[in-house]
Amino acid sequence: MTYPIGIVGFRGYSGEDLVRLLSHHPHVSVHLLEHRADSQDRPRPRRYQGPPRIPCTPDAVREAKLAVVFLATPPEVSMDLTPWLLEAGAKVVDLSGAFRLRSVANYKRWYKEDHAQETLLHEAVYGLPEFFREQVRGARLVSNPGCYPTAVNLALRPLVEAGVIDRQASIVCDAKSGVSGAGRKPSLKTSFCEVTENFSAYSVLEHRHVAEVLLTSQLEEHEFSFTAQLLPIDRGILETIYFRTNSSMSALDILNIYEKSYGNEPFVRLYNPGGLPDLRAIQRTNFCDIGVVCDPSTRRAVVVSAIDNLVKGAAGQAIQNMNLILGLDETEGLL
Amino acid sequence: MTYPIGIVGFRGYSGEDLVRLLSHHPHVSVHLLEHRADSQDRPRPRRYQGPPRIPCTPDAVREAKLAVVFLATPPEVSMDLTPWLLEAGAKVVDLSGAFRLRSVANYKRWYKEDHAQETLLHEAVYGLPEFFREQVRGARLVSNPGCYPTAVNLALRPLVEAGVIDRQASIVCDAKSGVSGAGRKPSLKTSFCEVTENFSAYSVLEHRHVAEVLLTSQLEEHEFSFTAQLLPIDRGILETIYFRTNSSMSALDILNIYEKSYGNEPFVRLYNPGGLPDLRAIQRTNFCDIGVVCDPSTRRAVVVSAIDNLVKGAAGQAIQNMNLILGLDETEGLL
Amino acid sequence: MTYPIGIVGFRGYSGEDLVRLLSHHPHVSVHLLEHRADSQDRPRPRRYQGPPRIPCTPDAVREAKLAVVFLATPPEVSMDLTPWLLEAGAKVVDLSGAFRLRSVANYKRWYKEDHAQETLLHEAVYGLPEFFREQVRGARLVSNPGCYPTAVNLALRPLVEAGVIDRQASIVCDAKSGVSGAGRKPSLKTSFCEVTENFSAYSVLEHRHVAEVLLTSQLEEHEFSFTAQLLPIDRGILETIYFRTNSSMSALDILNIYEKSYGNEPFVRLYNPGGLPDLRAIQRTNFCDIGVVCDPSTRRAVVVSAIDNLVKGAAGQAIQNMNLILGLDETEGLL
Amino acid sequence: MTYPIGIVGFRGYSGEDLVRLLSHHPHVSVHLLEHRADSQDRPRPRRYQGPPRIPCTPDAVREAKLAVVFLATPPEVSMDLTPWLLEAGAKVVDLSGAFRLRSVANYKRWYKEDHAQETLLHEAVYGLPEFFREQVRGARLVSNPGCYPTAVNLALRPLVEAGVIDRQASIVCDAKSGVSGAGRKPSLKTSFCEVTENFSAYSVLEHRHVAEVLLTSQLEEHEFSFTAQLLPIDRGILETIYFRTNSSMSALDILNIYEKSYGNEPFVRLYNPGGLPDLRAIQRTNFCDIGVVCDPSTRRAVVVSAIDNLVKGAAGQAIQNMNLILGLDETEGLL
Repeated sequence: MTYPIGIVGFRGYSGEDLVRLLSHHPHVSVHLLEHRADSQDRPRPRRYQGPPRIPCTPDAVREAKLAVVFLATPPEVSMDLTPWLLEAGAKVVDLSGAFRLRSVANYKRWYKEDHAQETLLHEAVYGLPEFFREQVRGARLVSNPGCYPTAVNLALRPLVEAGVIDRQASIVCDAKSGVSGAGRKPSLKTSFCEVTENFSAYSVLEHRHVAEVLLTSQLEEHEFSFTAQLLPIDRGILETIYFRTNSSMSALDILNIYEKSYGNEPFVRLYNPGGLPDLRAIQRTNFCDIGVVCDPSTRRAVVVSAIDNLVKGAAGQAIQNMNLILGLDETEGLL
Repeated sequence: MTYPIGIVGFRGYSGEDLVRLLSHHPHVSVHLLEHRADSQDRPRPRRYQGPPRIPCTPDAVREAKLAVVFLATPPEVSMDLTPWLLEAGAKVVDLSGAFRLRSVANYKRWYKEDHAQETLLHEAVYGLPEFFREQVRGARLVSNPGCYPTAVNLALRPLVEAGVIDRQASIVCDAKSGVSGAGRKPSLKTSFCEVTENFSAYSVLEHRHVAEVLLTSQLEEHEFSFTAQLLPIDRGILETIYFRTNSSMSALDILNIYEKSYGNEPFVRLYNPGGLPDLRAIQRTNFCDIGVVCDPSTRRAVVVSAIDNLVKGAAGQAIQNMNLILGLDETEGLL
Repeated sequence: MTYPIGIVGFRGYSGEDLVRLLSHHPHVSVHLLEHRADSQDRPRPRRYQGPPRIPCTPDAVREAKLAVVFLATPPEVSMDLTPWLLEAGAKVVDLSGAFRLRSVANYKRWYKEDHAQETLLHEAVYGLPEFFREQVRGARLVSNPGCYPTAVNLALRPLVEAGVIDRQASIVCDAKSGVSGAGRKPSLKTSFCEVTENFSAYSVLEHRHVAEVLLTSQLEEHEFSFTAQLLPIDRGILETIYFRTNSSMSALDILNIYEKSYGNEPFVRLYNPGGLPDLRAIQRTNFCDIGVVCDPSTRRAVVVSAIDNLVKGAAGQAIQNMNLILGLDETEGLL
Repeated sequence: MTYPIGIVGFRGYSGEDLVRLLSHHPHVSVHLLEHRADSQDRPRPRRYQGPPRIPCTPDAVREAKLAVVFLATPPEVSMDLTPWLLEAGAKVVDLSGAFRLRSVANYKRWYKEDHAQETLLHEAVYGLPEFFREQVRGARLVSNPGCYPTAVNLALRPLVEAGVIDRQASIVCDAKSGVSGAGRKPSLKTSFCEVTENFSAYSVLEHRHVAEVLLTSQLEEHEFSFTAQLLPIDRGILETIYFRTNSSMSALDILNIYEKSYGNEPFVRLYNPGGLPDLRAIQRTNFCDIGVVCDPSTRRAVVVSAIDNLVKGAAGQAIQNMNLILGLDETEGLL
């Protein structure tokens, strides 16, 4: 069985990774939806044949019988396209921030914009399969999580649920991301000469991705400090997460909690005490790798969580969600 | 007036920066002390004349009448050389960790080695001029601070002294360093292909530089979590420091405290609220740049402190100390 | 049908790529042959299971019934291992330079060492499938080409054979390679701080890979100038090749010659006039991408040839050769 | 004596280097001329005081009595500003390509634009001090050479003049440049993710800088092949230049010719046979470093020429020209 699927925003970095990964997927045929040609195609060898291109219109989507459409687009474009795509019979996996929060008020607070699709915002399912697998299976509209929140939620939510974190002491997530997370549109901040041999923090304490962490890991804003930082690399996120445990715990104690949540998860990998993931371990994969260091005598704990921002943080997780929607094996095309 | 000075370890990265910086210093003449030719000289153009080279022996040091000798050497070499250098009439600025801690027991704990020079350990002055300027002026042996501790101590000590940090909540220092901090000796960990497009944490909660922070900023170990991380760049350290304030404070309140400590300091620069230093701001300079973000309503504060690990974190600070020892203007050769 | 195969040198960069690529190959089962543990294993997540490890001995090779063994080892190790591996019934694909030249005298000239296996040197087949496919099919011992020669031979040989190059004017190959081409063994030349933000030429006019170009493209040494240069990147080779044509030719004329040689080749891709490959086009693939610029009025031509030094320049081409040896589809595991 | 000077385009990379270098110059006071605020200022520490800013108008230039104005602007802006700047009594050092060629026809051919200031084009002196020092001293308008041509002209012109190059065989210049050469304006081609771990050729055989080489080194277009290529680094140009000598020559023979031209030059450095410059040797300096490899038996020669594209290739050379114009020591502020 082969499902026709579509990609809007296929020239961006997440879009390119969707095309790259889906070209190995045995059960889908890809269509590129020409929305706005705002970015150039890459030079290609003779006889290169990418997937077929069709217009981004209701008629074209219906005619191609697209089962799923990925939106690798800015939030405002996603809000424009989603209603008629659903209408045209496609299910939607949106990689933007448009449908990640649970209320228009919260959206307004963090995105500084009005939300144009309140009903869909309420309908959308947050596509973090490790926690919301069942809801994704039945969804028409899946909101693919942000890259930063994916790494920190997978690290924190099991520990918050287990009640082992001392919430009087602060929880800190110091996050570092490769530049592709900022998208393909040229800007001074992502110019080579500004980034190479440099490192900088931005959106300290006020990054909009914080909202997703508070919602998913059930934390209060005053408990959680988050800093986003720009690494002079192409792809990869590493987050160093600091907290205090309620009682004396070893790294192995923490790992046992993770083991309960993730023992059967195909895309979360744990490191034995003494081992920590680096970015090399996860680049171009859909894995989230987690390692732990503890000092039981002082109840200090440090968790390192690493993903590829374009894969588990975007295109790969979107395909994981698509597999769930289509009733396919969740790992299809991703291992 | 020109002072003859010497450098041991001139082929390493800190040693190279000493040579580079001192070549512009109007009051010293540099001598390279050939100790062990364990690293290659770089290729040089015809007629290149570096500073004169002399043997690393008491006779040569006496004959050259070296006023100050810099040791850009491993701790065990520094312990070997320091006694006879002092004997030969030179003052010593040691860039290794040999003389940074205050007791042999503490040294043993963090460096996992016995200390061979207990008397000198007690005599050595910790060369962080912003706090110990007067002691440095009269010292025979100055222990140049570690690169990581310089950035974090300059950020934390004024706040600890002012009593504004909530010490029940944890203090976190998430530190990122360029690769030159690991020295010039080849190793797999610092090989190009292992580092480029990568990022990794090491020595989590147990880096030996922590000891210097506890001593200088007067913190207890259980209050302070420190992670060292390797950036895929040549030089620069950026530390993101998280804490909670005792009462509601704005970034401006914190900056006022810094202003009191550093208002007249030539090498500490503050950023107005909304501004933060990146590494570009401080590379190849002796500045420590500090910026602050606060959320007064939740008492969360984030301080970003940036230095060049080879300059304010090593060679530049060593020259600052030399200037103090020799009674010169503290900024000579450094602006 | 599944063939057991073995890899010696699996911790090096070419060896790692062999493991990575073969893990997707449907018709082989990989065995790692523990020869010398001279390099560290990488940290791995819990439950990571790499391929099984067996000793690098005749008994173990026989017992495992290895059909093919890859040698990702230095030349002297390859000379040691090859005789008994063949004896034990395995065919050998050697990635070192041990068996690439056609006489012990030539080997001695370029490698500055005596050759210890003259008979095998004469038996070995040069594994550039685009030109020696049939010989590889029947070979016991395949010598996998060097990375630099693969890119330049694929660019030059069809043109030399077609007789279109003016051999009175010089032919120049200006080659640039990522650092992984130098192997995983730490050295000052491949240390991060020496390579980042740097670029340098080495082995100018005397790189040992020149010998393979002279042999394969049938050029005289005085006609061909070659410079190897180190790019501050992990992987990829781009060669800019300059020559004069005998008569006025357009880029399309040159491309037509390539088309005749490579029209049915799965791993050589051509670019239409106006297009040139960059490294992004070929990284992590087994393709050699070729583009052409000509100025017909002055008979000047420039060809850009790009490969991944670890794939088409090493592990990928080795697998291509293995597929031929085993009678499998040549592209198996490589697309 | 202090001369007031001005800089237009001070936010670009060449402009920033002018400001950086001139801040150490003992005989000038810098003024920033606000022309178009098309690029952002960098974040700065409190109390940062850059040079004073004045409007880019004839009145302001007259009032400030600017002796020299540097134009770090696009060619069309330089053509607009130069006439009235000269009128206002300032001498002009233009870093753009506006005044580098000798005729409007030649400009039209290589820049594909009409030239708006023919008289000034004829008046302008080509500011390569090693060859046109005397003309620069008396000039009102100096056209600062391009970055690529500076490195290749310094390497080729003495050899062409000495008549040692076999002009029947081709002369090849394979040039590689850091990204800052493309300017600070954001574009997809200079975005971090497009450049990092990549390498690419552009403007093959038709780069506009070729025109300057033909003029200055007195070559015919059919004799000289030039390729520009983008290195994944911030700054530095390395050019690998290939030619055949008329008779058998050693590297030392070639170096003796250079020695005659450059024996007293402060900014050209030669390497003994066996040594070659890399980019580290010249970054952030005004040096052009030159090394030679020859194979006398085949008359093949390779010259490696390296400069910092922003210093000897732009700002540094411009200051060298300013020093000549003002009658100062040519090396002032540059060593």
